[in-house]
Amino acid sequence: MSEETYNAPTEIKELEIFNTIELEDYAKEVMPHGGFDYLAGASGEEYTRKRNVESFKSKGILPRVLADVEFPETDTKIFEHDLKVPFIMAPIAAHGLAHETKEAGTAKGISEFGGTIMSISAYSGATFSEIEEGLNGNPRWFQIYMSKDDQLNKNILDEAKADGATAIILTADATISGNRDRDDKNHFVYPFGMPIVSRYLTGSGENMSLNNIYAQSKQKITPKDVEFIKEYSGLPVFVKGIQTPEDALKAIGAGADGVWVSNHGGRQLDEAPGSFEVLEEISEAVAGRVPIVFDSGVRRGEHIFKALASGADIVALGRPVLFGLALGGWKGVKSVLEYFEEDLKRVMQLAGAQTIDDIKHTRLKDMNNWQ
Amino acid sequence: MSEETYNAPTEIKELEIFNTIELEDYAKEVMPHGGFDYLAGASGEEYTRKRNVESFKSKGILPRVLADVEFPETDTKIFEHDLKVPFIMAPIAAHGLAHETKEAGTAKGISEFGGTIMSISAYSGATFSEIEEGLNGNPRWFQIYMSKDDQLNKNILDEAKADGATAIILTADATISGNRDRDDKNHFVYPFGMPIVSRYLTGSGENMSLNNIYAQSKQKITPKDVEFIKEYSGLPVFVKGIQTPEDALKAIGAGADGVWVSNHGGRQLDEAPGSFEVLEEISEAVAGRVPIVFDSGVRRGEHIFKALASGADIVALGRPVLFGLALGGWKGVKSVLEYFEEDLKRVMQLAGAQTIDDIKHTRLKDMNNWQ
Amino acid sequence: MSEETYNAPTEIKELEIFNTIELEDYAKEVMPHGGFDYLAGASGEEYTRKRNVESFKSKGILPRVLADVEFPETDTKIFEHDLKVPFIMAPIAAHGLAHETKEAGTAKGISEFGGTIMSISAYSGATFSEIEEGLNGNPRWFQIYMSKDDQLNKNILDEAKADGATAIILTADATISGNRDRDDKNHFVYPFGMPIVSRYLTGSGENMSLNNIYAQSKQKITPKDVEFIKEYSGLPVFVKGIQTPEDALKAIGAGADGVWVSNHGGRQLDEAPGSFEVLEEISEAVAGRVPIVFDSGVRRGEHIFKALASGADIVALGRPVLFGLALGGWKGVKSVLEYFEEDLKRVMQLAGAQTIDDIKHTRLKDMNNWQ
Amino acid sequence: MSEETYNAPTEIKELEIFNTIELEDYAKEVMPHGGFDYLAGASGEEYTRKRNVESFKSKGILPRVLADVEFPETDTKIFEHDLKVPFIMAPIAAHGLAHETKEAGTAKGISEFGGTIMSISAYSGATFSEIEEGLNGNPRWFQIYMSKDDQLNKNILDEAKADGATAIILTADATISGNRDRDDKNHFVYPFGMPIVSRYLTGSGENMSLNNIYAQSKQKITPKDVEFIKEYSGLPVFVKGIQTPEDALKAIGAGADGVWVSNHGGRQLDEAPGSFEVLEEISEAVAGRVPIVFDSGVRRGEHIFKALASGADIVALGRPVLFGLALGGWKGVKSVLEYFEEDLKRVMQLAGAQTIDDIKHTRLKDMNNWQ
Repeated sequence: MSEETYNAPTEIKELEIFNTIELEDYAKEVMPHGGFDYLAGASGEEYTRKRNVESFKSKGILPRVLADVEFPETDTKIFEHDLKVPFIMAPIAAHGLAHETKEAGTAKGISEFGGTIMSISAYSGATFSEIEEGLNGNPRWFQIYMSKDDQLNKNILDEAKADGATAIILTADATISGNRDRDDKNHFVYPFGMPIVSRYLTGSGENMSLNNIYAQSKQKITPKDVEFIKEYSGLPVFVKGIQTPEDALKAIGAGADGVWVSNHGGRQLDEAPGSFEVLEEISEAVAGRVPIVFDSGVRRGEHIFKALASGADIVALGRPVLFGLALGGWKGVKSVLEYFEEDLKRVMQLAGAQTIDDIKHTRLKDMNNWQ
Repeated sequence: MSEETYNAPTEIKELEIFNTIELEDYAKEVMPHGGFDYLAGASGEEYTRKRNVESFKSKGILPRVLADVEFPETDTKIFEHDLKVPFIMAPIAAHGLAHETKEAGTAKGISEFGGTIMSISAYSGATFSEIEEGLNGNPRWFQIYMSKDDQLNKNILDEAKADGATAIILTADATISGNRDRDDKNHFVYPFGMPIVSRYLTGSGENMSLNNIYAQSKQKITPKDVEFIKEYSGLPVFVKGIQTPEDALKAIGAGADGVWVSNHGGRQLDEAPGSFEVLEEISEAVAGRVPIVFDSGVRRGEHIFKALASGADIVALGRPVLFGLALGGWKGVKSVLEYFEEDLKRVMQLAGAQTIDDIKHTRLKDMNNWQ
Repeated sequence: MSEETYNAPTEIKELEIFNTIELEDYAKEVMPHGGFDYLAGASGEEYTRKRNVESFKSKGILPRVLADVEFPETDTKIFEHDLKVPFIMAPIAAHGLAHETKEAGTAKGISEFGGTIMSISAYSGATFSEIEEGLNGNPRWFQIYMSKDDQLNKNILDEAKADGATAIILTADATISGNRDRDDKNHFVYPFGMPIVSRYLTGSGENMSLNNIYAQSKQKITPKDVEFIKEYSGLPVFVKGIQTPEDALKAIGAGADGVWVSNHGGRQLDEAPGSFEVLEEISEAVAGRVPIVFDSGVRRGEHIFKALASGADIVALGRPVLFGLALGGWKGVKSVLEYFEEDLKRVMQLAGAQTIDDIKHTRLKDMNNWQ
Repeated sequence: MSEETYNAPTEIKELEIFNTIELEDYAKEVMPHGGFDYLAGASGEEYTRKRNVESFKSKGILPRVLADVEFPETDTKIFEHDLKVPFIMAPIAAHGLAHETKEAGTAKGISEFGGTIMSISAYSGATFSEIEEGLNGNPRWFQIYMSKDDQLNKNILDEAKADGATAIILTADATISGNRDRDDKNHFVYPFGMPIVSRYLTGSGENMSLNNIYAQSKQKITPKDVEFIKEYSGLPVFVKGIQTPEDALKAIGAGADGVWVSNHGGRQLDEAPGSFEVLEEISEAVAGRVPIVFDSGVRRGEHIFKALASGADIVALGRPVLFGLALGGWKGVKSVLEYFEEDLKRVMQLAGAQTIDDIKHTRLKDMNNWQ
């Protein structure tokens, strides 16, 4: 599979979205098979991927009435950024699989929506300058996959900083690839290069498998890497992929400025809990010392609400945005973000929460037999 | 979709009912698609709608024997009304979707059955006087959707009172519409007007969407509204849509004369618990200070029994009655009510409860793995 | 439907049984539709019927090794009867639906198997003397459905005693019929009379519905009835249909000589727990004062084992025996009983129990997520 | 069915394995029906067989990050053997059903993989010397099914010892056959003899059913047999089939040198817990006094990880290896072992465990609603 033969979708249009679950089915129809499976798939039997979404049902929202709510307010703040919504874009590799405009398309959708942050993946298929064409000054964070060579890491951080990144996300749960059956069966290789990390690859990234690329990145991610990134970049550092209170404290101890609760959308270790299932205990351990970003499985306004009520400060969106990109380019991305904003506001109104802070003080109900 | 093109069912006949679950399938065959989906559907993925019915299985009825029961007695009392059964008609909008006789058909079915109460929705498609033709003096309560203009609310309350309403039901869980995918996909609009609330709509209600109508009603429902309605009408006030002990106490604190436990049949906030799942703890908080009406998910005599054994004083019936209306007009409504009466009596005999009070003192068994 | 048009199976043959679950499917092929549905069906949505079987999975058998077991011994004792197996035949109405030889066929299968007890239902389609032709002196208990007229009850008890019944089973959970959808939809009526109870029916029982027959029996079953039967018959009395510790103690308090834990195979009150789910707490309340018979849902040797390990002294078999009757007449009945004996012995060997007493002292494991 | 008519697969090739669950489907296509059902099937409704695999989901692996892991090390030790992986081959009868090379094929696959142990079943279809052709000096343990005649047992132990067995596995959970519906329906008999135990059979084993063969082996397995084997052979003895802490202590009390937690792949007693469900409590009782081998249901690297983290020292693989044998002869066996090695290493990297000891000190998360 090469760039010549990979025909990424090209359409740019607004989407009428009833729910983001269905977007996956629609995206499947327009995306090349291998690219779709890469994006939609996960590791093992994809139990954890499915459980990410389903385990939100382990807690029920209790609608509160007589609550004096009207036109709920979704604005919040993370570090220096004033956000109009409590969700941002999660880092995802290779947007070019979903749309020919690659990360620049996503970026434009985000900047047109406004009031939120784009996470740029080191495994981006677009260059920083290409992405900036779409992002147009919008705030961005940079997610690093580290090289085994720290000099190269410095180079990457230099570039990211020059590009305007205001925080670095260290993805710590992906030192190698999970066992992604779909990709293995499809013999999937990236149809284009990865300009940001190609400096440490034996090639551009094009025609390379995920396993191969991961193998050339750094495996031994330790607290020292947190310190290194923080010191060298001078930027706040998130450790992404936290699933235990122990690791949250370890990250904070190493100087992390934020904890990013995620299981990589179920793409790394299967038979792990749903990410939402571990959020509350992590939040209790963190106890407000640093902000918590949460991702994996978010598909509805209810999910954002539940994550915030369980201790998250910000929710990151992944696959649904990419499916929107596949279906409508930057306009599709914007439609997805607008859907989440509207859906969250509806949930807030019905749940009786005027503000994000109200959500954080909402009691959820533990549900039995939620499957 | 307009009144001209909406062909509501017209048949009037008694129904042979084996169980009310099946009525939905039969109603689907005779009702126009959009109307059926509006009535049968709910919000989101309709998880809460389904859980409403299924969660009754979270408690098992323990049949009691040697209990000296014969010809169980279902009569009970709520305020000044002597009822022959512990169930009443829940407020539902737009009965005209189910049958050309609209709310008047339901009303006639209820009055012919006798010994129970009709709740008239502010979103009725019939006028008070049209409904009275069927209700024929039968007791009725009025459910208000408030205008943003209190003068209009006074006018509505005046009319309801003049019509003979003996209590006002303030629906507090529906300040906006839930995200009803089916309606959105069908681009559903009401095919007829809503004469009671049209005074505060930018139109009659005809050809308007649910979202639109809700948006024109009042969002900021607060304890003050309870006080206002109570003071202005001089009638007992129920707060409908209670799902937490906290809100039950808040409503009582505001002067509510009754708590109406409901999640609106799962039509408002999805991923909320089944309504039955929250009943017991609310009942314990209310502790008998005011009566509790319960709705959402009731399909069988067993469900009525379980709700009463978990603290409800009265159970309100919704969709099954409307499906009966669709299938047989007023006679269908009467058949549904008769079915519930007969089924409840059978359950009481088999469970060893001679009276409603016996039911209230029956121990249920917590069930594991009830799905 | 009348005796002329009901073509009950007639074949008499041994059965090769792999498991009794499948017998239902095979019986369905040979029995008239209405008769099969009557026998296989239950009340409501048949949730409790299904849960009866499934809830055995709520406890797991822990295989015990190094246990010195060989040729496990299944003999036990109940009152004056030495049994070769810890299971007996449960009382079931109208065996003639399954086979033209009616209860006499079942009786012959039992007596040829030997070492167990037949329960004769008052709703038998055969007379005592017809049954005796097959039973041939084998021990039997008599299950009474009481008339509203105690003189008639005395007559029935006289007959049962004259026939040689050594205990009376008072069925207390069936004062009326459950809501059996299948029968109602089939407009099922018995195709033959019920000679034992016809004295209190307005007819022979033929062409009468179950609802009708139950309605003519006694509803107000109380502790006085236990006393009456015990005193008049001078025989030990079981109260059948016990599902709570409270009722077990009530029955014992009224003089019952045995507690029969049963929910009538799910045929009476739906949305009740599986019968196995309530056994242990009843057994703890009874505390050995009287023997416990258990039925409802037993399909495998494992089920017999679990019931005995949870406090039952004797297990009663129902539907599987009748399906065997349908498929092979008395030889089919014998095959079913032999299957259970063999299967129980296999389970005992593998579980490490040499005797019935060993089973009673076996620890089971509480299982989570057993569905 | 005889050796002439049983056409076992003959192909020898490497396998591309994505996961071992699928191997079963592929093996079904190449194996004769009766042989496949024998191998894939289990007892009763095969609930325990399925639960063996599914119950691994009752605990979730919590991925640990910042863990300084690279090139995880899977080497471990059991008795005098240095293993390169923490898994070995479980004893399984009649490999000849899967491949014409019988146990010799499996043995060659194992020895070519190296660094692990083969368990040779007494119900092997190949002789010790035939197996040695494939095993080629690789370590092996011998699993005995005892004769009722201890002299014959001595002969068997003499042979096994002469063959180089370094431990004896006493299978204690299979004193008779489980009720294997598939085999019974297929009227399955072994198509070839069992040279090791034929000395105590009334025939060679060929054309004999499993029930028949088990019946001729010893049923009364007791602590004395542990002592006898240990004393006579002078080798370490495992008791295989332990499912309770009580039996683990009983075995150790009898002198067992290792506890083998297994429910025989669900082939013996159905409606028993999944083997993984009982591992932790057994491990706590054993408290490190002797090593624990675990089998039943292992299909993924995650399962090996979870078993080790729950107290097992070594995991034994069964059906997946035989399916590999069916599909590719010794090369297929080697492919399966390589798959497990690679998959375990991937899990270790992602879970943050550098060594087997790290795995043993990993906390798992109790999962609710894992089905």
